[in-house]
Amino acid sequence: MARRRVGLWLVGAFGGVGTTITVGLAAMAKGLVDQVGLTTDLPAFRDLPLPDPGDFVVGGHEIRETSFDASAQEFRDASGVFDAEWLRACREELAAASARVRPAPRYGLSPTVAKLGDWRADDADGTAREAVDRIAADLDAFIQAEGIDHLIVLNVSSTEPPFRTGSPHESLAALEAVLDRPGDPVLPSSSLYALAAFRGGHTYLNFTPSLGGSFPAAHELAAKTGSLYGGKDGKTGETLMKTVLAPMFAHRNFKVMSWVGHNIFGNRDGVVLDDPHNKSSKVETKDKVITEILGYKPASVVSIEYVPDMGDWKTAWDHIHFKGFLGTKMALQFTWQGCDSLLAAPLGVDLARFADVEKQRGGKGLMLHLSCFFKGPEGDPENDFFKQFARLEAYAAAIKAGAK
Amino acid sequence: MARRRVGLWLVGAFGGVGTTITVGLAAMAKGLVDQVGLTTDLPAFRDLPLPDPGDFVVGGHEIRETSFDASAQEFRDASGVFDAEWLRACREELAAASARVRPAPRYGLSPTVAKLGDWRADDADGTAREAVDRIAADLDAFIQAEGIDHLIVLNVSSTEPPFRTGSPHESLAALEAVLDRPGDPVLPSSSLYALAAFRGGHTYLNFTPSLGGSFPAAHELAAKTGSLYGGKDGKTGETLMKTVLAPMFAHRNFKVMSWVGHNIFGNRDGVVLDDPHNKSSKVETKDKVITEILGYKPASVVSIEYVPDMGDWKTAWDHIHFKGFLGTKMALQFTWQGCDSLLAAPLGVDLARFADVEKQRGGKGLMLHLSCFFKGPEGDPENDFFKQFARLEAYAAAIKAGAK
Amino acid sequence: MARRRVGLWLVGAFGGVGTTITVGLAAMAKGLVDQVGLTTDLPAFRDLPLPDPGDFVVGGHEIRETSFDASAQEFRDASGVFDAEWLRACREELAAASARVRPAPRYGLSPTVAKLGDWRADDADGTAREAVDRIAADLDAFIQAEGIDHLIVLNVSSTEPPFRTGSPHESLAALEAVLDRPGDPVLPSSSLYALAAFRGGHTYLNFTPSLGGSFPAAHELAAKTGSLYGGKDGKTGETLMKTVLAPMFAHRNFKVMSWVGHNIFGNRDGVVLDDPHNKSSKVETKDKVITEILGYKPASVVSIEYVPDMGDWKTAWDHIHFKGFLGTKMALQFTWQGCDSLLAAPLGVDLARFADVEKQRGGKGLMLHLSCFFKGPEGDPENDFFKQFARLEAYAAAIKAGAK
Amino acid sequence: MARRRVGLWLVGAFGGVGTTITVGLAAMAKGLVDQVGLTTDLPAFRDLPLPDPGDFVVGGHEIRETSFDASAQEFRDASGVFDAEWLRACREELAAASARVRPAPRYGLSPTVAKLGDWRADDADGTAREAVDRIAADLDAFIQAEGIDHLIVLNVSSTEPPFRTGSPHESLAALEAVLDRPGDPVLPSSSLYALAAFRGGHTYLNFTPSLGGSFPAAHELAAKTGSLYGGKDGKTGETLMKTVLAPMFAHRNFKVMSWVGHNIFGNRDGVVLDDPHNKSSKVETKDKVITEILGYKPASVVSIEYVPDMGDWKTAWDHIHFKGFLGTKMALQFTWQGCDSLLAAPLGVDLARFADVEKQRGGKGLMLHLSCFFKGPEGDPENDFFKQFARLEAYAAAIKAGAK
Repeated sequence: MARRRVGLWLVGAFGGVGTTITVGLAAMAKGLVDQVGLTTDLPAFRDLPLPDPGDFVVGGHEIRETSFDASAQEFRDASGVFDAEWLRACREELAAASARVRPAPRYGLSPTVAKLGDWRADDADGTAREAVDRIAADLDAFIQAEGIDHLIVLNVSSTEPPFRTGSPHESLAALEAVLDRPGDPVLPSSSLYALAAFRGGHTYLNFTPSLGGSFPAAHELAAKTGSLYGGKDGKTGETLMKTVLAPMFAHRNFKVMSWVGHNIFGNRDGVVLDDPHNKSSKVETKDKVITEILGYKPASVVSIEYVPDMGDWKTAWDHIHFKGFLGTKMALQFTWQGCDSLLAAPLGVDLARFADVEKQRGGKGLMLHLSCFFKGPEGDPENDFFKQFARLEAYAAAIKAGAK
Repeated sequence: MARRRVGLWLVGAFGGVGTTITVGLAAMAKGLVDQVGLTTDLPAFRDLPLPDPGDFVVGGHEIRETSFDASAQEFRDASGVFDAEWLRACREELAAASARVRPAPRYGLSPTVAKLGDWRADDADGTAREAVDRIAADLDAFIQAEGIDHLIVLNVSSTEPPFRTGSPHESLAALEAVLDRPGDPVLPSSSLYALAAFRGGHTYLNFTPSLGGSFPAAHELAAKTGSLYGGKDGKTGETLMKTVLAPMFAHRNFKVMSWVGHNIFGNRDGVVLDDPHNKSSKVETKDKVITEILGYKPASVVSIEYVPDMGDWKTAWDHIHFKGFLGTKMALQFTWQGCDSLLAAPLGVDLARFADVEKQRGGKGLMLHLSCFFKGPEGDPENDFFKQFARLEAYAAAIKAGAK
Repeated sequence: MARRRVGLWLVGAFGGVGTTITVGLAAMAKGLVDQVGLTTDLPAFRDLPLPDPGDFVVGGHEIRETSFDASAQEFRDASGVFDAEWLRACREELAAASARVRPAPRYGLSPTVAKLGDWRADDADGTAREAVDRIAADLDAFIQAEGIDHLIVLNVSSTEPPFRTGSPHESLAALEAVLDRPGDPVLPSSSLYALAAFRGGHTYLNFTPSLGGSFPAAHELAAKTGSLYGGKDGKTGETLMKTVLAPMFAHRNFKVMSWVGHNIFGNRDGVVLDDPHNKSSKVETKDKVITEILGYKPASVVSIEYVPDMGDWKTAWDHIHFKGFLGTKMALQFTWQGCDSLLAAPLGVDLARFADVEKQRGGKGLMLHLSCFFKGPEGDPENDFFKQFARLEAYAAAIKAGAK
Repeated sequence: MARRRVGLWLVGAFGGVGTTITVGLAAMAKGLVDQVGLTTDLPAFRDLPLPDPGDFVVGGHEIRETSFDASAQEFRDASGVFDAEWLRACREELAAASARVRPAPRYGLSPTVAKLGDWRADDADGTAREAVDRIAADLDAFIQAEGIDHLIVLNVSSTEPPFRTGSPHESLAALEAVLDRPGDPVLPSSSLYALAAFRGGHTYLNFTPSLGGSFPAAHELAAKTGSLYGGKDGKTGETLMKTVLAPMFAHRNFKVMSWVGHNIFGNRDGVVLDDPHNKSSKVETKDKVITEILGYKPASVVSIEYVPDMGDWKTAWDHIHFKGFLGTKMALQFTWQGCDSLLAAPLGVDLARFADVEKQRGGKGLMLHLSCFFKGPEGDPENDFFKQFARLEAYAAAIKAGAK
């Protein structure tokens, strides 16, 4: 029997996360590296009908004209990751995947992001509908060419500034009425991909805090076509730590007076986040998890600073000042030194694998069991990492129990 | 109706933890301070039939002739904790509690601890039985004098060296046969208190890694008299962090290569732990939680160093070196700066309150639902703090559901 | 022979630094505490003709109507410093000093600072000349009343926003011509005190980055009257560390790629620095020392955040990323946990003592030998702490050699 | 005119430091990499008559039969250092240098070190004199074969356990009398190389805390032959930090109550230091610098732990607890993350270059101006890094002044 073919369409394909996913899938498929870092490799999940690394076919959209190989080399030089031998061994796979990446429409890109882009599918002057149509056409062509059984669109592009939605976004009908409107974008770039995915009944996963498919009109479309979706914003490093530690403070009834978190890093994402508009989206999700877990808002500072020489190595220093018994003030500090793309990429692979399991079961709509992967889990007030994870375990156990 | 009177008998009463418990209960009873730091004050537990701070009557045993007031002052000077006004306001309560503390038998004390003691109930040359009898007589006198409804013996004395149990500890009959034996102690000091407590059907809680009541003969006695018990070793600071963070590494399928933990502190407990024999008990429980949660043993270093000027401020630096996706090496470091006795005391109060709830329900034997308070939960392989805590929540929910 | 009487006039008297200086001088004069933390107490300087703590008479200006005693109590509660017994023992001295503090003119205060002030010497609507006159009158009255031999005006008030000087500040004549001008302040508050001090031939020390006496017209006046002066901005914590560590990187020929420094603290100074205009003065001096020592500008981030619960405990995290041999990237991180006023106050005392030694020798003008106490030493390109300190040692050695 | 040829004879050639020196000299000679990390590249020293990287001819002794190329590859894999391209480009030079490395005599090796060695020049049963003779013969052969103008023996082998010297080490005559004695070694391995070097009038530099040439009989021999020497123990990371920070605490008159330093690392040196006897030499020099700079001994803890997964990345956490003004307790913590061999190797190159400058000037005996490179500078009570460095600057300035 032919193997299942799962299409993984990366929005922002040649970025750090997209490149790492592509290199990682290829290296795992060839058996060059084990699956450490993949949640789906844990005993609790290993027996689900997960697609293998070699079952994925990677494609995507991108604004910079380059290749996975070049990106990987650049990444290697700046951050000291990726073994040169893997890259050599996977050269063919990377070239094939690069050839499946298409230039992105420029509609709805934030100015900071647009400046980074040199690969033009079009002029910026089109309409939202034209951009969605173009994306949809690219997706269709990919499905046809590769014989894809299930297409997953994964947004791993740069963070957009907050986008203020309004009445045109409240229903599909209202949205349709403005899609041809010229002038100010009626949707940010990320949402175009969500619409294109939902239109085709494909799966959409939003690994960023951008708007993507998180507004009523998009939900309406997804419901109509039976699309799967999940988001937002991969929970990789410092925020993962926050959602791990905040429950401890809560359970011990410590009173957190302040939680200060400073992040420094130097990858391309950093250039984008150096723009205060783009940054504000990120800071918001990083900050609110604490309040939601504790049930009150401590004083807080969150900074994300672009420091070029750090490369992909995101270093976070957090200082938590808390009151214990008899009002005694104590402190916890931590320093997290993680390679951002290498933390994000396995979550992207996990999300895609879990989404495919759900697709095989005939699932539709929001995948709430994936909250543990997101900083701001859509439609889910729960931010406690361990409660989120317990839910994922329960999901897997239920499937396995049903399968018997 | 008369209020319930719960006796809280502190073994090592004038130590940092015993003093903080006593000061804390008095200050809370007077409404001078809130219950921050008490798990029992959380919404999930608040509605259980918990004894109020003012329902506790404190007594205890001690090897140093001093008082709660003097200990509190000393503690205040060394570590900058306790408000002078609280101490003034509670002077009478502290004096009354001090008068209820009795000199401890010297039988079975480790040499390092014995050296600290200047208060002699007896010569060191008696037998184990004489020591247990003396303790039991002190407990009885306390119950009579104070009209105690439920007596809880809480071991907050210094950590003992590991004690090798043998066939005399395997059954009550075998133990009885050696209790009068002269020469080398047949039991360490901590176990005498457990036996005295179990003999009277009282509750015994072991906040230290010492042997206490954790051997078959003691369990047999507890079963015979229907005593409640729980232990061992309060999970206060660095180990709490370990049992919070290790599950995160496990759930993300990170491979922990090494976990290094260095602890420095300067309280009297530190003098005792500066003796390598006493320290080894502590290091063992601090180390093994990680292995049990991860399912494999990373390289590890655990040190506990006595640095006098730190006072009660235990500072721990942990360095966790782990492998993520594609074998990428990353690191997490944390520094925990906590006041040891102020972290331990609320757990002691919580344990006593939860034990009294269980007593009121007619419970007997080992209280497994209290594992989240212990570094080395007796009879429980689970060290994941969040799974332990979920069990405590379930316990409370069940009681509340039953009460309806 | 009558003891020398040195007047120490504190601008911002009831702030954290002013209060700590006043409490410290009183406690040292009474022999309640030793001189740890005072550079002047080192063997190299001890034999200079330094005024004793009891030789100082404290007075000052202030915008908030309170007292040293109340400030000290408030400070004690928020930050856990000062022994209650010292405050009791020094109550009389503190009251006497409080009575010598005068309400400050409102002229030239930054809006953020003005908002904190409730003690009015005048309306805000006067002229610069009126304000200088009022200050000078207060200084004269103090000298007369207390029989002061040498008056030192020490600016320990809050940091002002950068003030743009222009042609009116280039000469004394030009300045005189605008001192009566209504409307926008022709000088910031700090400069009024410098002018009043210089007019009387007194000594002016600027412990803040504010303009103070650092402009040509003021220098001209100081030269005319033979006044001593020094500044700017006390080198207390993180910047001290920078000027200690940067020379190490330079001497080892390490290439510093980035130096990131985040500061959090919660005292009243923090309220003022929370205003971006006031903060910018501070960030500038904190940042440029590194460039001046290294000889090139690494990427850098400097943040100062107001986190109220931290009280006076300024905590700084610095991350220094550097390249060593063969381009190998390495990192140094430090966390500095210091009590800001307790770090600043002894420098204030040292500066005043050294200034008095210089006065006794008949010195005039800028005291370059005091650079090691300042973040931005006036008229001095040297920021290497050890080179600055060597100069102070040489100064003392020369005096002692001359005295023989 | 023919270029000067400086022989650099590495004792422990294939270890991390020896390998890095050899790779570094080759890469610099080829212009593949700049001289960042070399003190001799600073403007203050650049104009001295320093040998160029290409003027050095590397040889050495070793106990493991391997090569620079294999060592460098191993090192690269474990610690992520060295560019693969450099290694390829320098393959020929590394092979030539490897061919100049000779098996080391086994006499006087500590058991832990001996166990690592598989390359046998001889049996362990010879005498000290035989071992010195063999070393001397190897040195002579190298000089002849390569036309060496100045031979520098640099000890970069593993740390030996402390060796107790006695009357046989007090004079050359006494030493001669025991050199043929069988049984317990009369000298540790490191001293054999020093004697062989001094016998030939060569230069000996001890980069380790081992005995080397630091005893009267060796000094007598060096004086007789006019040999240059310097040591001991390269000041690379944490100790460098200590000698940089301790002067700050001293100059500010802070009272250091405790200085705790924990080091973890995983290179081969770590295997050796894991033996408590070998470790004790290291701990001693790391600890005493603080006492010598401060003038009193604070409480202190120094640990060095072998954690294999850390590779060559030595990570140190230091916690310094100090008292400031009015007895206020404050803390400084730092984490140093440095690659040990990459920190050590440039110091080895600097030492050799400076030693050659001194040789060209006709210098003899102990080079006190090199103290800033050593943890325990021989014959020098000064440990303050900045005072040591100022002396080196003065040395260079004097030479340059004389040259004019």
